[in-house]
Amino acid sequence: MPLCIRRATEKDGELILGLIRELATYEREPESVVATIEDYLTYGFGPQKLFEAHVAEWDGKPVGFTLHVYLYSTWTGKPSLYLEDIYVQPAHRGRGIGKALFVHLARVAVERGCERYQWQVLDWNQPSIDFYSSMGARSTPEWIPFRIDGQALRDLAAKTGILDEA
Amino acid sequence: MPLCIRRATEKDGELILGLIRELATYEREPESVVATIEDYLTYGFGPQKLFEAHVAEWDGKPVGFTLHVYLYSTWTGKPSLYLEDIYVQPAHRGRGIGKALFVHLARVAVERGCERYQWQVLDWNQPSIDFYSSMGARSTPEWIPFRIDGQALRDLAAKTGILDEA
Repeated sequence: MPLCIRRATEKDGELILGLIRELATYEREPESVVATIEDYLTYGFGPQKLFEAHVAEWDGKPVGFTLHVYLYSTWTGKPSLYLEDIYVQPAHRGRGIGKALFVHLARVAVERGCERYQWQVLDWNQPSIDFYSSMGARSTPEWIPFRIDGQALRDLAAKTGILDEA
Repeated sequence: MPLCIRRATEKDGELILGLIRELATYEREPESVVATIEDYLTYGFGPQKLFEAHVAEWDGKPVGFTLHVYLYSTWTGKPSLYLEDIYVQPAHRGRGIGKALFVHLARVAVERGCERYQWQVLDWNQPSIDFYSSMGARSTPEWIPFRIDGQALRDLAAKTGILDEA
């Protein structure tokens, strides 16, 4: 069987970073990837470990990956698997590799006691939306994502408020 | 100064669960909260620790809370603070407690090396949307949340695919 899905290791840093850059290019933001190998090791394998990654190999050659973390649902009281990235190289699509990765992560979620498997998709990415819908997923467009990044976050943290009053 | 924000401890289980139920009632899904004290202890303080929570006290009495986890951004290579819940009891609003909690979590994010502070808000919750906008946040409506829950997740995990073929 030509497909193998395995956990990523410390040695996969360059490989995973390369695939992250390919995915960011597809998502039209190639210049947004500033992550380094050191970040990969720190947050994937160090004492501050946050994420887990998987690699898909076809005939022994890496062709895709996933990267996930765990959220906690205050309603279910259980973890939720949050899929940050899932990617298969264009030349290897149409063989069921994306589906195999997606189902594999669902199994990881169930093994870890998750009640929910969640992710976000760009609104113009219709092939992915169709794929997720075919897998039994539903969108929750009533929940709007919000964020504060970079310097705006540091400015917010520096705001004084009633806690800082004498 | 009547306001204090402190890290939640093992002893705050009943308190936090009560506030989670109040927030779910406000979000029109009170029956969705099935989390238990055991879940609180397991995922807040045990070896499977996932979340951190904070309690806001006014004149020594608990009046609000936050609960957060950490995501990993494959683009920045840094953690993102994901705010799962922020809540102030209605009788105590208008004193800046929500703002103090929100800014406090921004400081936690910066201390932990996060490049991003993120959360989701229900699309009909205009008071919260206005509050977040006034804090310098921006919505990213181009990212649509998707999920698979409960039995549908277990059904997906049980699907066979090319990996399971002999």
